[in-house]
Amino acid sequence: MTAADPFDVPHDAPFGVHNLPYGVVTTAGDPRRRLGIRFGEHVLDAGAAAAATGAPVDLLALLAAPSLNPLLAAGRPAWSRVRAAVTAWLTEERYRAAVAPCLVPFADVVAHLPFDVADYTDFYASEHHASNVGRIFRPDSAALPPNWKHLPIGYHGRAGTVVVSGTDVVRPCGQRRDPGEQAPSYGPSVRLDIEAEVGFVVGSPSAQGDRVALADADDHVFGLCLLNDWSARDIQAWEYVPLGPMLGKSFATSVSAWVVPLDALGHARTSPPPRDPALLPYLDDSAARPSGLDLALEVGLNGHVVSRPPFATMYWTYAQMVAHLTVNGASLRAGDLLGSGTVSGPERDTRGALIELSWNGEEPLRLPDGTERSYLQDGDEVVISGSATGPNGSRIGLGEVRGLVRPSR
Amino acid sequence: MTAADPFDVPHDAPFGVHNLPYGVVTTAGDPRRRLGIRFGEHVLDAGAAAAATGAPVDLLALLAAPSLNPLLAAGRPAWSRVRAAVTAWLTEERYRAAVAPCLVPFADVVAHLPFDVADYTDFYASEHHASNVGRIFRPDSAALPPNWKHLPIGYHGRAGTVVVSGTDVVRPCGQRRDPGEQAPSYGPSVRLDIEAEVGFVVGSPSAQGDRVALADADDHVFGLCLLNDWSARDIQAWEYVPLGPMLGKSFATSVSAWVVPLDALGHARTSPPPRDPALLPYLDDSAARPSGLDLALEVGLNGHVVSRPPFATMYWTYAQMVAHLTVNGASLRAGDLLGSGTVSGPERDTRGALIELSWNGEEPLRLPDGTERSYLQDGDEVVISGSATGPNGSRIGLGEVRGLVRPSR
Repeated sequence: MTAADPFDVPHDAPFGVHNLPYGVVTTAGDPRRRLGIRFGEHVLDAGAAAAATGAPVDLLALLAAPSLNPLLAAGRPAWSRVRAAVTAWLTEERYRAAVAPCLVPFADVVAHLPFDVADYTDFYASEHHASNVGRIFRPDSAALPPNWKHLPIGYHGRAGTVVVSGTDVVRPCGQRRDPGEQAPSYGPSVRLDIEAEVGFVVGSPSAQGDRVALADADDHVFGLCLLNDWSARDIQAWEYVPLGPMLGKSFATSVSAWVVPLDALGHARTSPPPRDPALLPYLDDSAARPSGLDLALEVGLNGHVVSRPPFATMYWTYAQMVAHLTVNGASLRAGDLLGSGTVSGPERDTRGALIELSWNGEEPLRLPDGTERSYLQDGDEVVISGSATGPNGSRIGLGEVRGLVRPSR
Repeated sequence: MTAADPFDVPHDAPFGVHNLPYGVVTTAGDPRRRLGIRFGEHVLDAGAAAAATGAPVDLLALLAAPSLNPLLAAGRPAWSRVRAAVTAWLTEERYRAAVAPCLVPFADVVAHLPFDVADYTDFYASEHHASNVGRIFRPDSAALPPNWKHLPIGYHGRAGTVVVSGTDVVRPCGQRRDPGEQAPSYGPSVRLDIEAEVGFVVGSPSAQGDRVALADADDHVFGLCLLNDWSARDIQAWEYVPLGPMLGKSFATSVSAWVVPLDALGHARTSPPPRDPALLPYLDDSAARPSGLDLALEVGLNGHVVSRPPFATMYWTYAQMVAHLTVNGASLRAGDLLGSGTVSGPERDTRGALIELSWNGEEPLRLPDGTERSYLQDGDEVVISGSATGPNGSRIGLGEVRGLVRPSR
C-alpha cells in the first residue's frame, strides 16, 4: 500500500479522473463481487462510496450491483449522472473523508469479467486485416470480398467462452486438413493465433423489430474494452466454408477487466478513412459526429512488443456496427459485446494477428530473445494494451488483456 | 374448462403421461412466470404441485423457479427425480386431491419462452438440405463442401432474438444485390423463408477447456423443441461470404413453448444414416447408443400442409453436435440451444425450407387456396408441428412453433 495521497493522481497517469473505467472486483477480505472504478493506484469500491456519500437511491442501486449490467441497461442519462457523481467524489474536498476508506489499493483487488456477456458479435472492420487474410486464405480471389466495402461484415461468436484478462487459454483440439491431404486429421491446433481487437460494450437495449440509427448509436454504446479473439487458423481454414468461423474461435475470447466509458474518449474521436464507394444511407456517416477513435494499441509477446496497431485506421466504426446489426430489426441487449475485428495498420509492424505478422509462417517473427514465432507455442504469454489521449493532454489508459497458452488437455 | 376428469388422458393423446414437456406460463389471474408441465388438456403448475405434494425441498426449489434454467443446470439425476415425481403425481390415486387444483386448463395459460437462451448455435445436419442449398447458392461447385461429411458444420446465431411460438415476425430490411447488379440496394427482404428445425436444449454445463465425449452427450442434453430459423435469403446471399450467415438470420428465431425431455423419446431413437467416409474417433457413433431420432415434422403455411420433413434422415445427431461443439474446449451452459439445421428429406414434399420447396422461385408452390408461394408474403402464417412414437404405441407430441409475418416497419 502506497503512503501517498490516493487522490493525488498525476495528470499524465493512465487512470486519472478523466478515465474512470468500470470493473467487477473482489478482495481477499471480501469475496462479494462488486463494482470497482479504477483511479490512479487504487480502485474505488463504487457501492461503498455511493453509500458513504449519501448518493440517491437509484444510483446506489446501480452501483451496489454485483455486475455492470444494471448500470449498462440504465441508459445514457444514468451513465452521465453516475460519472458526474464519481468525478465529484474523487475531486471535491467535501467528499474526501467519506470516500477515502472506499479506495482499495489496485494490487489488493482481483478483477473478474466486468459484465455478463449477452450476445457476442465479431466484426472484420480493418481493411488492412481483411485484405491480408484474404490474400493468405484465398490467394486465387480478390483480396476483399465484393460485400466488404458495402457493409461491416461480422459473425456471432460464443458468448459463454468470453473470459477476463489473466485467464489461461488451453490450446484447442480439432480437425484440420493438412496441405495435399484429402481427409482431415485430429489433434491440438498447430496454428494458434491472436487477434488484437477493441470490444464495444452495449448498454441500453433496443426493441426487436426496430432499427437503431447511426446517429443514435451513442445512446446504446456504453464503452469499450480490449479484446483478444484467440484463433486456431488450421481449424478455422478447414471448417469456415460456407457458414463462417466456429470452433477455430469458440474456445476462448479474452477481454480486459476495465470497461472505459465512451464519455472518456471524446478527445480520441477522429474521422474514419474516406468511404469509397459511397455507402447506403443507413451506414453513411459523412455528416455524422465522427465515430472513428484514435486508440494506440500494443501487442506484447513474452514481454516483447511485436506490433502497434493503430485503431484510427479502421474502415468501419462502432456506430456503423450498431446501425448495421440492428437494420434487420435484431434487438440489442445490455451486455452485448461487439468486437471490432483484428486491428491492423498498413505497415507490417502494425498488424494485429500473427497470421499477418508472419505471413502464415512464411516470414517468422524474430523475437529479441533469439527465438522465432510463426504461431503461438505453449507457455507463450500475450498482452494487448492500449491508450488514448484525453482532455488537456491527459492519458486515457485502456488497460490490458493478458493470456497465457496452456498445453492441450 | 372441460368437465371430464383431467387425469383421464387417452393413451394416444399427444401430451399423455409418457411425454410431460416443460414450459413457462402465466395466467390471467396470476402474472408470475412459473413452470408448467403440459398434460392432456391441462397444464400442471409444477411449483404448486411440488408444494401441495410435499416434495423434497431441492425439487421444490427447482420447480418453483420462474424459468427452466435452474432445472436444466441441475443435471440428469435431478431431471430423472423430477420426472418420476411428476409421473407419480399424475398417475397415483393418493396424490389426486392435492394435485387436481394445480391443473390449469391449457386454454387458460399464456406460454412464454421456456428457458433463457445462453448461446444459440445452428447446425446444418441434413445432407438433403445442404445439397439442395449448395446447388442453389453455389451452382458451379460441388453440392456439398469438402468438410461436410467430416464434421457437423454450424455457426453461432443471435440468442437475444430467439422468441416463443406465437410471436409475430417483422419482415427484415437489409442489403441485397440483385442479379446483374454491381452495387447492393436496401429494402425489405423479398425472399423471406423458413427453416423447419429441431432445437436441442442443453442442461448440465461443461467446463471451459474440457471436452464432452459423444457417449456423455445425454448427460448434457435435457430435451428438444421445434424451431423455425427464419431466413432472409437475399440478405444472406449477399452477406455470407466469408464469415457466414448474420443479418439474414439474426432478426428472429422462433421456438416452441414446450420442451420435450429426451427421456420421453427413448422409443424414437433410431440409427442415423450410414457414415461414409468413416468419421474421426471423437465423432464415430458406430458403436454408440443410437442418437438418431425418428420425429415426424409437418410444415403448415396458412393452414395447408406444404411439407413433412423426416428427422430420422438427418446425417448428424445431437450427440455428435455436442461432441463437436466441445472438442475445442468450448464450454456448455444451461440454456444453450443447438439447432439441427433445416430438416429436409429426399423427396420434394419433405423439404423444410421454401428455397428448396420452390427451388429458389423457379417452381413456386401451389397452395390449395389457389395462390402461389416462392417465399413468404406479409400476413402469411407458418406452423411447424411434430410428433414421435412413445412406449406401447403412445404418441409424443412435440407441439408447434407458430409465427405470422408482419410488414417491415
